[in-house]
Amino acid sequence: MTFEAKAIVREKTEQALEVLKEKDVDLWITFVRETSQVKDPVIDLLLGFDLTWTSALLIHKNGARIAIVGRYDVPNVERLGAYDRVIGYDEAFGQPLLAEMEALHPRQIAINYSESDPAADGLTYGMFRVLSRALAATPYADRLVSAEAIIAALRGRKTASEIQLIKVAIERTEEGLAQLQRFIRPGVADTEVADFLHNFLTENGYGASWAWDYCPVVTVGPDSPVGHAMPSGLRIKAGHLVHVDFGISRYGFVSDLQRTWYVRPAGETTIPEAIRRAWDAAAAALEAGRAALKPGVRGWQVDAAARQALVGAGYPEYMHAFGHHIGRTAHDGATVLGPKWERYGSTVDGVIEEGNTFAIELGVAVPGHGYIGREENVVITANGAVYLSHPQEHLWIV
Amino acid sequence: MTFEAKAIVREKTEQALEVLKEKDVDLWITFVRETSQVKDPVIDLLLGFDLTWTSALLIHKNGARIAIVGRYDVPNVERLGAYDRVIGYDEAFGQPLLAEMEALHPRQIAINYSESDPAADGLTYGMFRVLSRALAATPYADRLVSAEAIIAALRGRKTASEIQLIKVAIERTEEGLAQLQRFIRPGVADTEVADFLHNFLTENGYGASWAWDYCPVVTVGPDSPVGHAMPSGLRIKAGHLVHVDFGISRYGFVSDLQRTWYVRPAGETTIPEAIRRAWDAAAAALEAGRAALKPGVRGWQVDAAARQALVGAGYPEYMHAFGHHIGRTAHDGATVLGPKWERYGSTVDGVIEEGNTFAIELGVAVPGHGYIGREENVVITANGAVYLSHPQEHLWIV
Repeated sequence: MTFEAKAIVREKTEQALEVLKEKDVDLWITFVRETSQVKDPVIDLLLGFDLTWTSALLIHKNGARIAIVGRYDVPNVERLGAYDRVIGYDEAFGQPLLAEMEALHPRQIAINYSESDPAADGLTYGMFRVLSRALAATPYADRLVSAEAIIAALRGRKTASEIQLIKVAIERTEEGLAQLQRFIRPGVADTEVADFLHNFLTENGYGASWAWDYCPVVTVGPDSPVGHAMPSGLRIKAGHLVHVDFGISRYGFVSDLQRTWYVRPAGETTIPEAIRRAWDAAAAALEAGRAALKPGVRGWQVDAAARQALVGAGYPEYMHAFGHHIGRTAHDGATVLGPKWERYGSTVDGVIEEGNTFAIELGVAVPGHGYIGREENVVITANGAVYLSHPQEHLWIV
Repeated sequence: MTFEAKAIVREKTEQALEVLKEKDVDLWITFVRETSQVKDPVIDLLLGFDLTWTSALLIHKNGARIAIVGRYDVPNVERLGAYDRVIGYDEAFGQPLLAEMEALHPRQIAINYSESDPAADGLTYGMFRVLSRALAATPYADRLVSAEAIIAALRGRKTASEIQLIKVAIERTEEGLAQLQRFIRPGVADTEVADFLHNFLTENGYGASWAWDYCPVVTVGPDSPVGHAMPSGLRIKAGHLVHVDFGISRYGFVSDLQRTWYVRPAGETTIPEAIRRAWDAAAAALEAGRAALKPGVRGWQVDAAARQALVGAGYPEYMHAFGHHIGRTAHDGATVLGPKWERYGSTVDGVIEEGNTFAIELGVAVPGHGYIGREENVVITANGAVYLSHPQEHLWIV
């Protein structure tokens, strides 16, 4: 774990104290075990490495930061320097946990579950039962509440060092995509495009921003499925749109961009009208969404602005959300800029805040040619959404 | 995803049908979303790639294998070929899920939670609430049971192709550790030993068997903390024991080995008595545990055999379990070969089965010199535990 990574964890645990005061919640418990098997996403914010035995990270709004961990994990947590007290145990965590609860005497205890936000839902059902049993004979069993608002605020409000790392991840991704320009030509398969970008990752020591198997997603011509599909061997032909959805992970922070190329047939002098119109409509809809994206607005309002712009231009609506947080993961939890569909739950009711970083995206299929996808990354300032990426201003021609 | 990886997933979903029949459970539901954020470990067995929207993998003992997933995940699941039916949805999963439940009409529905086994506890508390709400008005809400026994059997009973992949991961690890032999000498820091093995991983395109930051664990002389500590800059001196706990991940399967070197001071002709005795006691205790490890025995019985051998030889007991499954992860869930301590819960009551693959391990500190750690990997046959690794037969001298 680098010095910088430890510093960011310390920064986030301090930020957590402010969030607890703001939300007026006494105690926040992150309760985990064997995080290499199932990892609560909050561990990246509050620790940055794996824990083995049953462990509790306690943060109290009065300023106390206490870690109860198995004895073999004690040195790592002590060296991190984010917790005032690190309590190690050998056989059972229950007694030290209850002792701390007695001392802190919290009115509410926030735990990591959420029906809507996967990034705030790291407590497993088994561990919920273990915790409930440990607290059963105490007054604390009835004081458990969801930490969803705490986690959304802490994860969503990026510090300056977090934004800097995201910015560099985006720049590196743009370098990789610029290199890809020279590789795209008729006869190349989607699998080869994916290999090219995988090599870019490996050579530079970057990880994929999401699952390796479909990062990048490569859409080649009109026959590729759109979405998260893995490449299947389809080859680029003249007249195709080639679309790539790609991001990297570098020092724990990610990017998420889409770029589209047009493979111009020999002799063609102007881009076909259907492609040009679709590009313009997608660009205008993306810009309408970006313009609506500012502090105080709710997620669904931003989506509606982009969606209406696209539908108003005569194109079908995109069957996904307009945007999502990026940060430690490509779908970084909290507020989703999406429509009020059941599967988005209450995440689209969240309010945009300064310091949030989003990917914003939409796309249009062009019959006979393929898919135009637009995706850029922005940071929210007091005045609105500012691009962190260099937006693709026109179709790239091969 | 490689052809072989897909074949193993199909193999495991077929094996799941047998396990359901054996345990007499009608339906098993793996209920997940955004698995890049929180991944149910069962996804590796039943799918092998990430899902984005709320998804349900249904396996019924009558043979039905059904996947309900978001529309963009449909092509990947269809190409996998492990599910008879792949049902895609756009806005809400609830209706297709209820329709399948009505058709299957299960008496019991196993879901992925366990108070003891982290590998069987992939259902989050938020998702448990979502599922409970979806089933609230049906007779199925009261039929939920833990899938812990199903998962332990399915994960623990390795197929021939799984054992082969584990075996190769072990062989490659042994190659890396053999290369390390030439690097260990006085003046080298624990961080440099870790870098050496990290380079070995990177150059060969392997992953770490567990968290990169402390895979390997490097113990140098008497001042290193024992356990999962990250290296801290301690340098090797003559007279030190150097101990490495290391494993690789290759094509989704891992190894987990420990090796110990003795850095002999100039002029010393025989290994100090205290080191020799400790090595022999550790070796005898490991062998006592291995001898006890056979089908039908319970986890705690194996641990007791090794623990008693070590304590009987006059050494303190090790403060961890004697062994754990290995496979897709270094702590591969299911039965733990550990003592009856509260933190191991009921995992130590599990029964050893043919086809299980274990890491078995223990260690002894030698005052003034450092730590001797022994860890080997075995597969369980009808006749007992057979080494998959080449056991370290004597201390390696530098």
